[in-house]
Amino acid sequence: MKVLYVFAHPEPKSFNAALNDTALAALKEKGHEVELSDLYAMNFNPVLNVGDFTERKKSDIFKPFFEAIQASKTGAFAPDIKQEMEKVKWADILIFQFPIYFTAMPAIMKGWIDRVLAPGFGFNPVTNSAYETGLFKGKSAMLAFTTGSPKEAYSEGGMHGDIHKHMESVTHCVFEFMGMKVLPSFIVFEASAMKQEKGAEELEKYRKRILEL
Amino acid sequence: MKVLYVFAHPEPKSFNAALNDTALAALKEKGHEVELSDLYAMNFNPVLNVGDFTERKKSDIFKPFFEAIQASKTGAFAPDIKQEMEKVKWADILIFQFPIYFTAMPAIMKGWIDRVLAPGFGFNPVTNSAYETGLFKGKSAMLAFTTGSPKEAYSEGGMHGDIHKHMESVTHCVFEFMGMKVLPSFIVFEASAMKQEKGAEELEKYRKRILEL
Repeated sequence: MKVLYVFAHPEPKSFNAALNDTALAALKEKGHEVELSDLYAMNFNPVLNVGDFTERKKSDIFKPFFEAIQASKTGAFAPDIKQEMEKVKWADILIFQFPIYFTAMPAIMKGWIDRVLAPGFGFNPVTNSAYETGLFKGKSAMLAFTTGSPKEAYSEGGMHGDIHKHMESVTHCVFEFMGMKVLPSFIVFEASAMKQEKGAEELEKYRKRILEL
Repeated sequence: MKVLYVFAHPEPKSFNAALNDTALAALKEKGHEVELSDLYAMNFNPVLNVGDFTERKKSDIFKPFFEAIQASKTGAFAPDIKQEMEKVKWADILIFQFPIYFTAMPAIMKGWIDRVLAPGFGFNPVTNSAYETGLFKGKSAMLAFTTGSPKEAYSEGGMHGDIHKHMESVTHCVFEFMGMKVLPSFIVFEASAMKQEKGAEELEKYRKRILEL
């Protein structure tokens, strides 16, 4: 299978980087083709702005939604967006791996979604293409992330509430919205306080999970 | 009262900019003091990275969480973060206004939260300061945002699910987490398809809402 692995962590010696390495090795072991978007290493620009479009439908006022719909017909997206779009088109599975910052993706990854999964690309309200008719029908997507808080805090009735519910703004409103099948999230809770042995166990769990894809 | 108004939209002629202008005028009318953080105009950097800290506790490996806890004692945050922290400390009310991009804040605003509301500033797990003992006790916070989808789509049982539930990752896991009182969100649904008359009505509604603060 073809896998696009979108990764966000600023530190190459972090546990998140080890998770990333583990996944890439396991995918290779199974003979999958992989494209990696290591957002920090790429110095990816997460801020949606006028420069996202190489031609404008309306030059007097910037309406991101309408420009994106137009650019999805004409191809007038900036080169860094186009490059990521090609990877998405090519992929059967998209994996997004990150440390949770405030119960959500780090900004650098949120901006990848904002800019790359543009209106007209993964969905199109003008042609009523979403959910059952989402434009990424046939693809699957998965989240893999670490948290600072323990599992109990991120469970229903816990201090923060169920992490799976919080993540529905991505799993449902992005992945399913664009027609993708959602694979269960891989979560390592309380990663910042983790002992080395527990870390090794989690890496092995992740390896097995990736081998089963 | 002292109000910090955090705003994110790339287009000064947008409906979001009109909402922002309306709010600023209404706040002035009531005699409130206002600090505006217009993130696009400031070219705010939303990407948390090593440069966020002017001194490092551990220079061999970058652990953002631990560096932030340390910097909250020593003040070793980068100047752009410190400037925003001063505004937060000063404010009684924080208002965040933005267009929804994929059922969440635009990356530029998510990154403001990631970088400015750092561990040790609004909360501190080391000293068990969160929720009832959150460090921003006494402050209030409010979201004001526009959506592309209609209200029905963002209601319980609707296509996307209840928008208030999706926003709990901010209202509960950021605002309440840091001890702030959450004010009801101001939402303009289906803003991109809105006629001018409806837009004027929404601006008037927002003006009244802000006057009641």
